[in-house]
Amino acid sequence: MLIKNITVIRADGTCFENMTVGVSGGTFSYIGRSVPEGEWKETIDGSQKLLIPGFVNAHTHVPMTLMRGYGDDMPLDRWLYDRVFPFEDKLDGDDVYWGSLLGIAEMLASGTTSFSDMYYFCESIIKAVTESGIKANIGRGISCFDHTKKFRDLPAYNELTYLIDSFQGAADGRVRVDAAPHSEYTTRPDILADIADFAAEHDINIQVHLSETQKEQLESTGRHGKTPASVMLDAGILELPVTAAHCVWITDSDMELLAEKKVTVAHCPQSNLKLGSGIARIQKMRHSGINVALGTDSAASNNNLDMFQEVKAAALLAKGVSLNPCEMPAGDALYMATRAGALSQERDDSGDIIQGNRADFVILNTRQPAMIPCHNVLSNVIYAAGAGDVEMTVVDGRVLYRNGVYTTLDIERIMYEVNRCVNALI
Amino acid sequence: MLIKNITVIRADGTCFENMTVGVSGGTFSYIGRSVPEGEWKETIDGSQKLLIPGFVNAHTHVPMTLMRGYGDDMPLDRWLYDRVFPFEDKLDGDDVYWGSLLGIAEMLASGTTSFSDMYYFCESIIKAVTESGIKANIGRGISCFDHTKKFRDLPAYNELTYLIDSFQGAADGRVRVDAAPHSEYTTRPDILADIADFAAEHDINIQVHLSETQKEQLESTGRHGKTPASVMLDAGILELPVTAAHCVWITDSDMELLAEKKVTVAHCPQSNLKLGSGIARIQKMRHSGINVALGTDSAASNNNLDMFQEVKAAALLAKGVSLNPCEMPAGDALYMATRAGALSQERDDSGDIIQGNRADFVILNTRQPAMIPCHNVLSNVIYAAGAGDVEMTVVDGRVLYRNGVYTTLDIERIMYEVNRCVNALI
Repeated sequence: MLIKNITVIRADGTCFENMTVGVSGGTFSYIGRSVPEGEWKETIDGSQKLLIPGFVNAHTHVPMTLMRGYGDDMPLDRWLYDRVFPFEDKLDGDDVYWGSLLGIAEMLASGTTSFSDMYYFCESIIKAVTESGIKANIGRGISCFDHTKKFRDLPAYNELTYLIDSFQGAADGRVRVDAAPHSEYTTRPDILADIADFAAEHDINIQVHLSETQKEQLESTGRHGKTPASVMLDAGILELPVTAAHCVWITDSDMELLAEKKVTVAHCPQSNLKLGSGIARIQKMRHSGINVALGTDSAASNNNLDMFQEVKAAALLAKGVSLNPCEMPAGDALYMATRAGALSQERDDSGDIIQGNRADFVILNTRQPAMIPCHNVLSNVIYAAGAGDVEMTVVDGRVLYRNGVYTTLDIERIMYEVNRCVNALI
Repeated sequence: MLIKNITVIRADGTCFENMTVGVSGGTFSYIGRSVPEGEWKETIDGSQKLLIPGFVNAHTHVPMTLMRGYGDDMPLDRWLYDRVFPFEDKLDGDDVYWGSLLGIAEMLASGTTSFSDMYYFCESIIKAVTESGIKANIGRGISCFDHTKKFRDLPAYNELTYLIDSFQGAADGRVRVDAAPHSEYTTRPDILADIADFAAEHDINIQVHLSETQKEQLESTGRHGKTPASVMLDAGILELPVTAAHCVWITDSDMELLAEKKVTVAHCPQSNLKLGSGIARIQKMRHSGINVALGTDSAASNNNLDMFQEVKAAALLAKGVSLNPCEMPAGDALYMATRAGALSQERDDSGDIIQGNRADFVILNTRQPAMIPCHNVLSNVIYAAGAGDVEMTVVDGRVLYRNGVYTTLDIERIMYEVNRCVNALI
């Protein structure tokens, strides 16, 4: 595919007009101002279009699209114990598969090319990822409430071992398997330590929830005499590549620790607001050197998976909370929503528009009311654009969504099957 | 028009399934469960669709779509003095007309049926409102920096008089003219008093900016020994029907005052965040009895006019700031975005789906990924839906937007003309 005369926006927000972008073998084979030699299956006129890196949704639970709107405006405990947990108890792999496909469809339509997930029935999620063409780090959720059990006694241990053996690097590397200890409060230090050893042995990444609520932060101190971040440190978790979701209530020392250990924080501003968790201090984190990425969290607490909404929310909150309109300029916001997420997934060849990188990108149509006029193309993308402006979503050079049509998904069937699953579950 | 088998959501969030809605003579002529007698030009199958009140954008400056993205991420003073004011100095009626049409197009596509505007060149805005079919309260902005001038010496006085004589109640009542003293800091107490007299004499409403920033609040106290709200009170402004935009920094006593005087607060959460103004305490305002409506502010500080984004932002912020997920449930949020705005415009026959009311409504398509599954249809509208789910926008019973097509606007021409105007201005 050769795209001519297009405006390219790099992950850091720098813009280059009238570019030619060649895509072959799943990568950006050419980026420049001349027209490269060679045969191209398709040539696209990119005038009045923008090419941006695909969004990386750094924290979600994609099958929970099944629970969109199932218990809003409720106290957190009632939501979890009366709604989420009983619903999840009834789930099977078929439900998870269809729920995942629906979430993936939403993500592709809103410009997301990769996501990091934490859930169960991971083989079903991997099937959905493989079939759809999207990219994902699939974290097998691990929790343990039985004090007689060690990590190796848990079903999660066997499933994780199986997933690594069967799917690590599957679908040409689009699928990666992570270990996902759910949190400090749903595991134990010895379990965490075993997970750390296991992850090191298998060379896999960690996804974890960290200091999402004030309650979690306080109870950890009560239980262990230390913050969740310190619990993770002492269990050896932080020696691995870690993506820690939320971090709303981390202390200043936690922050130093996360920076030192090169932990990625997955900021989920809309979910944190919606669940009444608070507002994470991401500007302080970023200034202390932490790689801050961006996630939607699940559709049960958002209630969609639209990264355009999330990146705008993140940029606006940073300004509003600090009472400073210069905080989190648009380029920083775009970086957080793209390259920072790719780095958190250890996909160093992704998340930016660079020759040789994997061709994960989105083409936006600027002939849309909210993209006009164009004083600043980057501002339009971060503060004005929406999913409706996405013309094309491409992963590893393959077009997965174009002008409202999915090339790999039967969206009518997915919507039908999700309704069928949900009706049977309720 | 007769719409059968549709789910109706009232302004307060209550839902009624399998309803029949008849629209004739610009009003809801029938709402019920049977099928009324009579001839209908068109019968619509409303199954898998929702009918909600059209959004009322209670505070915007619609021609400022011309300045979308013109100076983001800048200190407020530099933005105003280096960008906004010099740009505005060069505007003429033609620019304002095309900018207004673009903003109106955005609003119609995202389900807004009425808006309150504060700007200049109001005749051009009224022309755009009249032609497009949308409804609006057009506030003529009034400011004065020349201490030798009284209200009656200002061009605003003459224009306002002319607007009232020529356009009050025009376009079958869709157009209303308001007086819009810009703020405490851009007027004077005697000017405000004269505006209050003028508004009372002509029976018109007031729109004003109030306590948007901490600086404004502090400087008013320095200048007058009282808050902007007290300045408005003493000038007699609060004796009129007033919509006060922002109110981020009002004191508790200001709040009591606004409640007592039945002032509407137009909450603009995204603009307040983006400009670093802060977060208004709207739950406290609502609990003290204030009518809180919702506005996008202009596309120069938002940067779009999408009320779906605004209502979600408002509902989420209320929860996040209070650390309570039960604050601002979806029904309250919908009310704020619809009926509360209609009341602020003194359009008592609008903003809700009631037999006899003006037929201002939006039909949403629920066969969209973000609207599935449907555990709670109201939750889906407030927390998950977006402009892309709007199938039809109807004002006074007239379809203005349907399946991506405008019935009154030539969107390609509008985009072309806006670019032409902006290129000439810069």
